[in-house]
Amino acid sequence: MMQKRARDYGIIIGTMPTGSKNKISDVPGVSVGHCTVDNEEHKTGVTVVMPCTENPFFHKLPAAAVVLNGFGKTAGLVQIDELGTLETPIALTNTLNVGPVWDALAGYMIERCAEDNHTLRSVNPVVCECNDGTLNRIQTRAVTAEHVHSAIQNTHPDFEEGAVGAGRGMVCHDLKGGIGSASRLMEIDGKTYTLGVLLLTNHGNLADLTISGKNIGKELAARLNKREPDKGSCIAIVATDLPLDSRQLGRVAKRVSVGLARLGSYIGHGSGEVFLSFSTANAWDSREKSALRQGTFFSEDEMDLPFRAVAECAEEAVLNSMLTACTTTGWQDNVIYSLPDVWTPDAPNNT
Amino acid sequence: MMQKRARDYGIIIGTMPTGSKNKISDVPGVSVGHCTVDNEEHKTGVTVVMPCTENPFFHKLPAAAVVLNGFGKTAGLVQIDELGTLETPIALTNTLNVGPVWDALAGYMIERCAEDNHTLRSVNPVVCECNDGTLNRIQTRAVTAEHVHSAIQNTHPDFEEGAVGAGRGMVCHDLKGGIGSASRLMEIDGKTYTLGVLLLTNHGNLADLTISGKNIGKELAARLNKREPDKGSCIAIVATDLPLDSRQLGRVAKRVSVGLARLGSYIGHGSGEVFLSFSTANAWDSREKSALRQGTFFSEDEMDLPFRAVAECAEEAVLNSMLTACTTTGWQDNVIYSLPDVWTPDAPNNT
Amino acid sequence: MMQKRARDYGIIIGTMPTGSKNKISDVPGVSVGHCTVDNEEHKTGVTVVMPCTENPFFHKLPAAAVVLNGFGKTAGLVQIDELGTLETPIALTNTLNVGPVWDALAGYMIERCAEDNHTLRSVNPVVCECNDGTLNRIQTRAVTAEHVHSAIQNTHPDFEEGAVGAGRGMVCHDLKGGIGSASRLMEIDGKTYTLGVLLLTNHGNLADLTISGKNIGKELAARLNKREPDKGSCIAIVATDLPLDSRQLGRVAKRVSVGLARLGSYIGHGSGEVFLSFSTANAWDSREKSALRQGTFFSEDEMDLPFRAVAECAEEAVLNSMLTACTTTGWQDNVIYSLPDVWTPDAPNNT
Amino acid sequence: MMQKRARDYGIIIGTMPTGSKNKISDVPGVSVGHCTVDNEEHKTGVTVVMPCTENPFFHKLPAAAVVLNGFGKTAGLVQIDELGTLETPIALTNTLNVGPVWDALAGYMIERCAEDNHTLRSVNPVVCECNDGTLNRIQTRAVTAEHVHSAIQNTHPDFEEGAVGAGRGMVCHDLKGGIGSASRLMEIDGKTYTLGVLLLTNHGNLADLTISGKNIGKELAARLNKREPDKGSCIAIVATDLPLDSRQLGRVAKRVSVGLARLGSYIGHGSGEVFLSFSTANAWDSREKSALRQGTFFSEDEMDLPFRAVAECAEEAVLNSMLTACTTTGWQDNVIYSLPDVWTPDAPNNT
Repeated sequence: MMQKRARDYGIIIGTMPTGSKNKISDVPGVSVGHCTVDNEEHKTGVTVVMPCTENPFFHKLPAAAVVLNGFGKTAGLVQIDELGTLETPIALTNTLNVGPVWDALAGYMIERCAEDNHTLRSVNPVVCECNDGTLNRIQTRAVTAEHVHSAIQNTHPDFEEGAVGAGRGMVCHDLKGGIGSASRLMEIDGKTYTLGVLLLTNHGNLADLTISGKNIGKELAARLNKREPDKGSCIAIVATDLPLDSRQLGRVAKRVSVGLARLGSYIGHGSGEVFLSFSTANAWDSREKSALRQGTFFSEDEMDLPFRAVAECAEEAVLNSMLTACTTTGWQDNVIYSLPDVWTPDAPNNT
Repeated sequence: MMQKRARDYGIIIGTMPTGSKNKISDVPGVSVGHCTVDNEEHKTGVTVVMPCTENPFFHKLPAAAVVLNGFGKTAGLVQIDELGTLETPIALTNTLNVGPVWDALAGYMIERCAEDNHTLRSVNPVVCECNDGTLNRIQTRAVTAEHVHSAIQNTHPDFEEGAVGAGRGMVCHDLKGGIGSASRLMEIDGKTYTLGVLLLTNHGNLADLTISGKNIGKELAARLNKREPDKGSCIAIVATDLPLDSRQLGRVAKRVSVGLARLGSYIGHGSGEVFLSFSTANAWDSREKSALRQGTFFSEDEMDLPFRAVAECAEEAVLNSMLTACTTTGWQDNVIYSLPDVWTPDAPNNT
Repeated sequence: MMQKRARDYGIIIGTMPTGSKNKISDVPGVSVGHCTVDNEEHKTGVTVVMPCTENPFFHKLPAAAVVLNGFGKTAGLVQIDELGTLETPIALTNTLNVGPVWDALAGYMIERCAEDNHTLRSVNPVVCECNDGTLNRIQTRAVTAEHVHSAIQNTHPDFEEGAVGAGRGMVCHDLKGGIGSASRLMEIDGKTYTLGVLLLTNHGNLADLTISGKNIGKELAARLNKREPDKGSCIAIVATDLPLDSRQLGRVAKRVSVGLARLGSYIGHGSGEVFLSFSTANAWDSREKSALRQGTFFSEDEMDLPFRAVAECAEEAVLNSMLTACTTTGWQDNVIYSLPDVWTPDAPNNT
Repeated sequence: MMQKRARDYGIIIGTMPTGSKNKISDVPGVSVGHCTVDNEEHKTGVTVVMPCTENPFFHKLPAAAVVLNGFGKTAGLVQIDELGTLETPIALTNTLNVGPVWDALAGYMIERCAEDNHTLRSVNPVVCECNDGTLNRIQTRAVTAEHVHSAIQNTHPDFEEGAVGAGRGMVCHDLKGGIGSASRLMEIDGKTYTLGVLLLTNHGNLADLTISGKNIGKELAARLNKREPDKGSCIAIVATDLPLDSRQLGRVAKRVSVGLARLGSYIGHGSGEVFLSFSTANAWDSREKSALRQGTFFSEDEMDLPFRAVAECAEEAVLNSMLTACTTTGWQDNVIYSLPDVWTPDAPNNT
């Protein structure tokens, strides 16, 4: 299915060139899979970001986490903060499903390591969440281990956006949100590097919604009679093949907030805004026994390049999540409209 | 069963008076329950700290978390860091069981809120863990929702220590560890307040073990031929009825490290040392609609009193966990001796 | 002198009502003083925010600090982070003048406490800075103790904005920046509270400059031939009479970033973005001997109100700093234009 | 002058081998200088740690800071936390002298960069402090720029410990404290690396003092009639030539607390305990223009080695600071005894 994204509507965010897919999977080795749960009671699911083609428990990637607003239940940050590495795929799901998805991810890693002849005794599953309780009967925790395994099986560089996987029941700026992605290319010392962002968007209110610097939300909020507070959450996964260390990856992740703010979010109290970032460079083979090894460092003075890239990607990824999502009627007949169903972009307006 | 604890051996830690039980449950309203899984393959379980008699989701308690060393999987810290409150019981279990126990705790809260006519849409279960993989076949994640519910049913101010509940399979200073507790009384402005600590001990190596300032570990390590690195973990739960706010509770939790260091730990790389603290004072009724309310503040200048109390409690609680635990033969016939089975305290030696 | 501010140009930021002066000094007890150093070599100075009319060393105010990007030299944050209180006026100056201004502030506090019959042995001066080295010969550290004392003498609820005090040599979005302020009123439980922001603006690049959601920077950057990276810094001081505790004040300070992002900043690498906040409620009299006292708490559920207020104030304060500043020729004949000298707002455009 | 240190008294801390000097300056390139102010009113001074022989502004070293207890005024941490690098010598002085010493350090760096044909516009002086107000008339801020320049001139791998430089007026466990140092060697992949610690000790109370695990303080406190709370501060500077990155250096610095706890400190409320660490490996030449460069990484799995080293060094450095200090009569005829003047170690007692 061809999905119509921001650029297809003539909306260009920023000035940097995009990757070929304009998705997080433009970073080599990164893929994404969904499993959607869609029935009368449930609009929910799980989305998995596979950070590399290797077993991530042995092929540890530099990583960092930034909590912009911690009204959220993301699991796995304690170890990332301490050790600065990622050792599992990253799963996204609904708030009350963190436990089962954590367990399924642990189970997957135990099996995968067993295939590699390693008896896993400890692993740090990373599970992020937003609350889809408006459209989804969240209390029944509908996402099971089978759904997680299916999402992992489905991981692919080409993946859908919008109301799919963990994004099935999400609501962004009072309209239908979900999964959105974007990427940017960076030319450094004669070589091209990529930075990509994947968002699970479930934040913001309608009156504040601003596209390409123009508030379109006030009129829509009046028309649709929406007066909700800015609540919900936003999860961001940032991937890059730039050789950034954990501290630098944290600095990059923090700039996701810039993209969100430009669309009108002011980081509401009820929002769980958690941003994870990892680099596919300088991976550490944990089976390697030598205490020292050689690697590549990236100059701090050049950080403005990934900073600008991540801000542009985040802003565009929110729009992609909203523009590709469909109007959805969920649990208790709640209806959430998609942005394309209530708004038509006028003359292309670049920022 | 009467368990023989540090003071029963004539070992007196510090100078402050203890509560009547010398346990965390000396803080009014706090109770602890265990459910132990003990079979050929498994030596594990779950321990639940119930912070108050009210529904904690409505009766939110000021809380804080301190990560001394984050090689661990504790879930629930993101929200505690942001909002400074606890809204569920705290569960302790083995490393790979965090997911199922998280889910069981969420299920318990959904049911408990349903009884109070509230449809729970979001809750932040707090699950802490240590790795019992030496004695327990950890990969099968033997702790189920039934075990968690049973531990919750069993919560009581009188509770066992040692190789019980989450402590069943833990190893501390290469000897048998598990659950240990202690408490101290503080006289403030003519009123008596209590601070209590509960530990899940799974840290340290034998050669470093120091009791009342005297290294007893070197001789034991030679005799038992133990040359393990300092790994494993230690979880601390600190409770008090002093009206401390979240920031002050974090300062108190940090001093748990002092007690651990005095016994010879140097905070090894592989250790997940996570300390949680909460106050039963100034609870916030989340159903209350007024934006402002009155409460009690504790002067920063008096913080040395709870600081000394928590350091003394932590040191004593480690000893209690080791002295009450029993020699255990576990998975793959691994044997871990209890401290009383390999060492006899000589003439009482106070510090 | 009457200064023409954003609202005088028809630019209205946000939807909340402003205080009577639309400045930080709308918070009762808060005043601001400047001392400007303006000669051939130097365009610099010092600005002092007096947080209360009492001696702040005895009348300790709840406070917090948030470092959005720490490429800066602000002194005094270690103690604010630990104790959550402010005990001196806050001074703003140029980067290399932090030492002398720190010393002058310490000297002022020693004298002020001596007047109150207290021999001061320890105090935590808070000194924030931005780098005015484009217009100011910064190496000579031109701000002296006399300038600091003069700024303190000059503190008043009515204070100038623009190229004055610490703002004399600052550059914002490649145009003249400096001091800007704004305030918002909040109706809570039938009572009116105030939140105010004061900024020292020295951040951003011209091409990114966006006013009321419309990019005006690209055309200006081309016309003025400015292609600078986003560097420099921004300091924010947030004051309120809402009874927020230190943790809540930190959450509020973090939202200053939203206002900056909406004007086009993406938090450049070279920027020292440090945000301080304090409440004039629940002040602690440090001479009081009782360990416990009564106070007022603010419900976490109502935090969206101060969050929105601080985002609106920050965005408006940046504009006020730029609109009130004058074109300046400084050290080595560098010229920085003021925004009103290069741009005329067209039809009022509200966001 | 030959100073009698812990090992000269037969006190051996830990099991790892020491460097040849058993001081921080065993790390190649590291040197230390003092300037002491000693007159009727003042017992104070400044101590400078020179981290390398190169200009540290161009030869940026990986660095980290850990605040164990932030009741202190250390300046310079904001930038170290963000960028993970050190760019000046580190100065230690008394609490109220932070401003003048900051300014002197800035002045030194401006001159040193001018010699290297660089006009310095921004620099991050790092100034740590403890409060010597018991022996020193601290309000007059007796340490001047000349003293700082003199300390810098005096930097040398052979340096004195005890009541010298910044340590002249410090009080540790109610006895005379000051400057102490120690080092340890680590064998890694066939090569020898060094880790060294320098402390400025001004913390602890007498009753808690514990040497080699034996409390000697209670008897001394009774005899000397000392019943002070645990206040004051402790600053630690950790240097190593192991190629640790900023995150790893922070993990190492945190373990300084283990050494302090073993001597009986419980991290009192009034204590400013700040630990800085840097590596002399992987220095970044900031004049270098390439965005990428090669370097060496240290395996996280091997961190126990530097952890143990820093704990041992910290414990021994406290003792060295106390054993080399002299009984001092200071301001207002306050007398602080040295440890050797009130206590004789009995039979050597190793831990």
